[in-house]
Amino acid sequence: MRNTLRAAALSALLVSSAVLAQPDETAWDITADLSTEVGARPAGSTAEAKARDWAVQRLNALGFQNVRIEPFTVTGFVRGAETAQLTAPYPHKLHITALGYSVPTPKGGLNAELVYFPNLDALKAAPEGSLKGKVAFVDHAFVASQDGAGYGPFGNVRRQGPSIAASKGAAAIVIRSVGTDLHRNPHTGATNFADPAKAIPAGAVSVPDAMLIARIAKTGKPMKINLVLEGRPQKDMPSGNVIGELPGRDPSLPPILVACHLDSWDLGTGVIDDAAGCGIVTAAALRAQRGGKPLRTIRVLWAGSEEIGVFGGAAYARAHEKEPHALAMESDFGADRVWRVQFNLSAANKPAKDRIITALAPFGIVPGGDRAGGGADVGAIIGVQKLAVIDLDQDGTRYFDLHHTPDDTLDKVDPAQLEQNVAVWTAVLEVVANEPGPLAPAE
Amino acid sequence: MRNTLRAAALSALLVSSAVLAQPDETAWDITADLSTEVGARPAGSTAEAKARDWAVQRLNALGFQNVRIEPFTVTGFVRGAETAQLTAPYPHKLHITALGYSVPTPKGGLNAELVYFPNLDALKAAPEGSLKGKVAFVDHAFVASQDGAGYGPFGNVRRQGPSIAASKGAAAIVIRSVGTDLHRNPHTGATNFADPAKAIPAGAVSVPDAMLIARIAKTGKPMKINLVLEGRPQKDMPSGNVIGELPGRDPSLPPILVACHLDSWDLGTGVIDDAAGCGIVTAAALRAQRGGKPLRTIRVLWAGSEEIGVFGGAAYARAHEKEPHALAMESDFGADRVWRVQFNLSAANKPAKDRIITALAPFGIVPGGDRAGGGADVGAIIGVQKLAVIDLDQDGTRYFDLHHTPDDTLDKVDPAQLEQNVAVWTAVLEVVANEPGPLAPAE
Repeated sequence: MRNTLRAAALSALLVSSAVLAQPDETAWDITADLSTEVGARPAGSTAEAKARDWAVQRLNALGFQNVRIEPFTVTGFVRGAETAQLTAPYPHKLHITALGYSVPTPKGGLNAELVYFPNLDALKAAPEGSLKGKVAFVDHAFVASQDGAGYGPFGNVRRQGPSIAASKGAAAIVIRSVGTDLHRNPHTGATNFADPAKAIPAGAVSVPDAMLIARIAKTGKPMKINLVLEGRPQKDMPSGNVIGELPGRDPSLPPILVACHLDSWDLGTGVIDDAAGCGIVTAAALRAQRGGKPLRTIRVLWAGSEEIGVFGGAAYARAHEKEPHALAMESDFGADRVWRVQFNLSAANKPAKDRIITALAPFGIVPGGDRAGGGADVGAIIGVQKLAVIDLDQDGTRYFDLHHTPDDTLDKVDPAQLEQNVAVWTAVLEVVANEPGPLAPAE
Repeated sequence: MRNTLRAAALSALLVSSAVLAQPDETAWDITADLSTEVGARPAGSTAEAKARDWAVQRLNALGFQNVRIEPFTVTGFVRGAETAQLTAPYPHKLHITALGYSVPTPKGGLNAELVYFPNLDALKAAPEGSLKGKVAFVDHAFVASQDGAGYGPFGNVRRQGPSIAASKGAAAIVIRSVGTDLHRNPHTGATNFADPAKAIPAGAVSVPDAMLIARIAKTGKPMKINLVLEGRPQKDMPSGNVIGELPGRDPSLPPILVACHLDSWDLGTGVIDDAAGCGIVTAAALRAQRGGKPLRTIRVLWAGSEEIGVFGGAAYARAHEKEPHALAMESDFGADRVWRVQFNLSAANKPAKDRIITALAPFGIVPGGDRAGGGADVGAIIGVQKLAVIDLDQDGTRYFDLHHTPDDTLDKVDPAQLEQNVAVWTAVLEVVANEPGPLAPAE
């Protein structure tokens, strides 16, 4: 008994001395090491499996407890060769990438007329069958904003466009990348076919390539494209969530759940999407121990297979739906500074909310309303359990310059802004993890 | 005679009404149309030949006279497949492009140890034979500046590095792109082998890839690379210069020579390097007619095959060395604003120089010394004839973000800055093309 107590005290001391040094490098190290030692880790891949092992090792080394992998299987997407050439009226190599769940072009590639649509509504208005044997090109006008507002509506070009083009008889679809940069890097991302049996090849060209196509379309000259997209869906790929905990003083209280996702798209090294998120929530969970062990357990969820259908979030909700949670939060919008806090907290939780607003004011963070949603990976458990939520909104001005592109690399992280995230998350966790009463959403 | 005079008067009127509208769209149209209708036009390629025809047609349409192609042949570089993978200690896809005059890797690619050198001096210090069977990686620290000063010294990694690595027995060389951006776009560019018979495969990875390699090198873990570079030099490719003139009132006076280059690297569409330069000098030559025909002829040179050895400039000097020139200028540093003027003018030309300084002051342009060099394509004729030179230095802060990359596309041109270039060039041409006395360099 005595030895056990001494070991526990020593362990507490070690954890606390490890986290007292402030600012620490934990978030940076997770972000840098995961993206360097594992790199790209697409859903279902062997690299994602390696990332899970990496995560278990790192969380254990950082002093997390009950660290485990919760496996599940997914239908993933395996990338193949991908090239495109405008062949008429002017020859141009196009920088293209397949969208997740695209199906392959015929052997030798597809040679077809390319039909320009300035936006998704124009595609929707195309008569049935009018695209038979043709490739639809869908443009849009997504521009950068602090809160990433354009990603919802303009992202539908990617999410819905392929299914709509298929329903009009198109042989394939090419979209303007759902991105806000001017680099020759296409943005990938999953699409959804209403009827997967009728899926067509679907790719995104870089924004400068899309601007070239739009410029040529304006001349009225017929356009032709040669398209090779060899990627395809693959069933029954192994994936999994990684979970770890920092136990609170009162194990009977429901835990605080903080999430990020471990998988990444394959084009970059998965830094801003979302190694940084894992770095932030994990470092903050640790730093929230600096004043002593909080009342509540903090559980970190590094979700798998977010990018191709939020499978990790769904698996987590299935596995843990009977287990009460106090509140859920997620970091999955890059590594730039938190500028706004949003809540979904009951009127009874107003004192906690006010303490958070006060704690965040020195960071210049504004309270922005009561529309906190949590994020993709905690969405399912929030929906099932009607959980309290706090969103720490990051500056997304440059997020969609990098999102799902080869440019998602470590050099894009500003260490000072990453540290601001950790400090802000810590301040919030210190309030909510020490809240003795029930935490509940507004309705 | 009367009809001829009337035709000439009408023609003059047409030219003058066409150029009186200010600002006109000539520079933009050349830049946009050449990069859209021809696109990439590497030295010696059929695309470059198409660009020459395009240039002849456009210069004739704009009212230039004596428009002609002066052909020559070059040893060019034909790109092939190019891929690279870091295979140890961590697998990473690298974004690579071959340097011009690289030779191919063996069939099936090269698998070898990758040896990190932080800079060119470190490579120079490697013992003879120490790189046998290995691939040298050479890093550097090129950062952006207004005058592009770093391109000289850091560019030697590309220009000299491959030859040095070959002399140490290296199987191949990979360099950090000579660029200042953080995108996964490698920068190509020609290299020079002291002994072409001993050329080795030579490629450049993007800056984020180079940073990854540097980060891994610091761990001390051995690195391995799989390298496929299939591009190769090709002899006897057709190239040529395109020349056009706006005759002056006194055909006995030597002409003002204004140059740009017509060829481009193959990765982008050759906009800032150098369609914009052709747009600027051509539009300014036309606009300098607005007050009536200047005293001197203005000759525009759209040089071929600049990128792989300034062959067009050399061919021009050979073809025209017996023909007097008054002064030479060149635009080949993008489309951003002119911020400085430099001269190489004799003391006797001080009045002209002062008039130019006065004319440029309203644009915020500073006189920056007397070290004008002209530029690559006019370098040979300046050297042979000891010509007067004026440099209109453009803001190069973002030039090496784009230079020789896929990102050299039309969207990078700011129309307002392009117009500033035309206005500034026009102001200078109006002085020098109306200068009755001899123009001569300082020494």
